[in-house]
Amino acid sequence: MMTQADPLSTTFAALADPTRRAILARLATGGASVNELAEPFEMSLPAVSKHLKVLERAGLITRSREAQSRPCQLHAAPLKDAVSWIEHYRMFWEQSFDRLEIYLKEIEKESSKHGPKHRR
Amino acid sequence: MMTQADPLSTTFAALADPTRRAILARLATGGASVNELAEPFEMSLPAVSKHLKVLERAGLITRSREAQSRPCQLHAAPLKDAVSWIEHYRMFWEQSFDRLEIYLKEIEKESSKHGPKHRR
Repeated sequence: MMTQADPLSTTFAALADPTRRAILARLATGGASVNELAEPFEMSLPAVSKHLKVLERAGLITRSREAQSRPCQLHAAPLKDAVSWIEHYRMFWEQSFDRLEIYLKEIEKESSKHGPKHRR
Repeated sequence: MMTQADPLSTTFAALADPTRRAILARLATGGASVNELAEPFEMSLPAVSKHLKVLERAGLITRSREAQSRPCQLHAAPLKDAVSWIEHYRMFWEQSFDRLEIYLKEIEKESSKHGPKHRR
């Protein structure tokens, strides 16, 4: 069933996992080997390697071919397109918060019409 | 293997498909029934319904329980957290474009040192 995904789908799929997001957060502080990346997780090295492969295929990390430890580096460029896509919808979520605000103000007005807030 | 995913993972997973992103883009222009949503895709109604279920579970669309056609509406609120997460990495992709620019300028300087660009 799995066909070659478009780059944007590959980026979003790579981000759809808390361990992979934590790996990217760790790499934002500097390059790291697989062992260093595996340390904070209760996870086998093969499991971490699998996550790294997903991130590498998505172009979100690069791995050195030279050193035996093959340290990983963050490569954030694909996130630019991801954020551009989502940004098109900003007016919609901002609208919904605006609407919530209007609603809350109406409730406030309504309750103040029916008498003081703090009765004794 | 599938466990209850965290909200952010669910959002990113829902976005990791071009049809689902196209459905959200369509709903940004206004509410639509399943039939209306299926029209531009060469896809069966059950296939479209499956995508709608993923979007609904991710809280990215809402569906009316009243009308028989159960029209769908965009609900962009979960995208706010998705964009917030990615935004933390902005300095990294901007840095890498800066570095590319520096690199290209260096190449340019280097080639101008070795003689005029357009020789005859």
